[in-house]
Amino acid sequence: MSKGKHSGLDFLDACQARVDEELDRCIERSSASNRLQEAMRYSVLGGGKRIRPALCLGAASAVGHTGDNALVPACALELIHAYSLIHDDLPAMDDDDLRRGRPTTHIAFDEATAILAGDALQTLAFSWLTETGSFDAETRLAMVRELARASGHKGMVGGQAIDLESVGQKLTLSQLETMHRHKTGALIEASVILGALSSGSVSDAEQASLTEYAKALGLAFQVQDDLLDIEGDTEIIGKPQGSDMARDKPTYPALLGIEGAREHLDALLNHALNSLRDFGPEADPLRAMANYIVARTH
Amino acid sequence: MSKGKHSGLDFLDACQARVDEELDRCIERSSASNRLQEAMRYSVLGGGKRIRPALCLGAASAVGHTGDNALVPACALELIHAYSLIHDDLPAMDDDDLRRGRPTTHIAFDEATAILAGDALQTLAFSWLTETGSFDAETRLAMVRELARASGHKGMVGGQAIDLESVGQKLTLSQLETMHRHKTGALIEASVILGALSSGSVSDAEQASLTEYAKALGLAFQVQDDLLDIEGDTEIIGKPQGSDMARDKPTYPALLGIEGAREHLDALLNHALNSLRDFGPEADPLRAMANYIVARTH
Repeated sequence: MSKGKHSGLDFLDACQARVDEELDRCIERSSASNRLQEAMRYSVLGGGKRIRPALCLGAASAVGHTGDNALVPACALELIHAYSLIHDDLPAMDDDDLRRGRPTTHIAFDEATAILAGDALQTLAFSWLTETGSFDAETRLAMVRELARASGHKGMVGGQAIDLESVGQKLTLSQLETMHRHKTGALIEASVILGALSSGSVSDAEQASLTEYAKALGLAFQVQDDLLDIEGDTEIIGKPQGSDMARDKPTYPALLGIEGAREHLDALLNHALNSLRDFGPEADPLRAMANYIVARTH
Repeated sequence: MSKGKHSGLDFLDACQARVDEELDRCIERSSASNRLQEAMRYSVLGGGKRIRPALCLGAASAVGHTGDNALVPACALELIHAYSLIHDDLPAMDDDDLRRGRPTTHIAFDEATAILAGDALQTLAFSWLTETGSFDAETRLAMVRELARASGHKGMVGGQAIDLESVGQKLTLSQLETMHRHKTGALIEASVILGALSSGSVSDAEQASLTEYAKALGLAFQVQDDLLDIEGDTEIIGKPQGSDMARDKPTYPALLGIEGAREHLDALLNHALNSLRDFGPEADPLRAMANYIVARTH
């Protein structure tokens, strides 16, 4: 099994540039002053590591496609992610003033504009999938279906609702995983699936392996996020350290201890890498991404 | 030209029952207590005239299809409409406590749940279009594309943003129309187009006529809404009378006077009916709906 000759950070950097360019085209600058469009651009183009787009491009590469096709779903995934962050940050939700070291959208604009910008970014994700790039109708439809499945009340939004209800609750490890499988896992899984689908030729076996990789990676991402919340530095992670703990949100370190959480993270990384055992070097970007995600410092 | 032998109210009643049944299937009752799903059901199944679904079914009928196919987009349209109402009613937006004579979603549940329920209903609309009924991929994709186009920042959400910015502003008739063409017109137009598309066989000429009908009807709907806001009764219209005027929102009666607004409404009705001149009695439901919309008392 190749451990991946790519550096995850190099791959991420290369993806970032391509994705940011596509996102810039996606929400055009408005000629007249258009507060809504400005808020959409502010939220989408204000940095962001573009992890989901990179996983999407990585999955396309794993099934042998390295062209620009996967940029279309990559962009749609980032639009969904950006909308969820805007709404998550709202006063009625997490009430965060800071995101990626900048004022959150409702602070930089206003609450009503932030709600609408989130709404419009969700719609744009589906528009983008139906109107951009060159795919046959079946492929486009499969991508829309997967993206909707991952982001709705049985996926990401459902996870956010569980998250809200679990503040101050004692969760079991299994309940915590259920929450994260929905809240962040579903979209990470969709990132990999959409990338593979965009190639127009993915076998059932490939799709199953990639899904397994994504499921493990989605949880690993969250464990690392929880560890960073305890160990990280505000300036680097862009939000106050310990903010999840302070809000009495259930976390992996709270359940497993810091060492236990680190071991869990290692096991998830191994599982993710092992899921790619039947792929050759074309899956190195995905391997590198897995290594990057568990080692990242912000 | 047939003026339509149907009563709009009869047609609407018949549609309501079919649509409500479909919507009930669409958001299943959750076995465990699931606050998000409850809020979605509360918002979607709490009455509502189902005007958009009726226009969708009416348009399918106008192009010769009376089966259940059009129920799929009809339901998706109502999900989008329901999500927009939840978000519109939020404290940061219109801050309404009452909708259809019942507490609005953020009052009946809480603000965070209302935001998420709206988000999830939008997603569900797209899921529903991709997963339900029997359509070929091209037809499904065309419906998703039109629905996304109508509801995003260049359609409904864009109109809501203009609406927010125009409070306290003096608008010209043309600016007021631009706002309404986006805010309510785009989805009414999509209702008719999706109904026609769901038939699988609509000519360009039919689609152009139906679009013209929908454009005129969308504006007529808004003029009548503004008139009802002045003349209506809180108990009947389900929101306090004169609430738009009190908020200093621009309205047709404010611009044209009550008589002027009534004349404008008549002209729009005639234009809508005239757009259907090439259709036979199969377009009677659409004719009846137009007559109903300008005559409705709530």
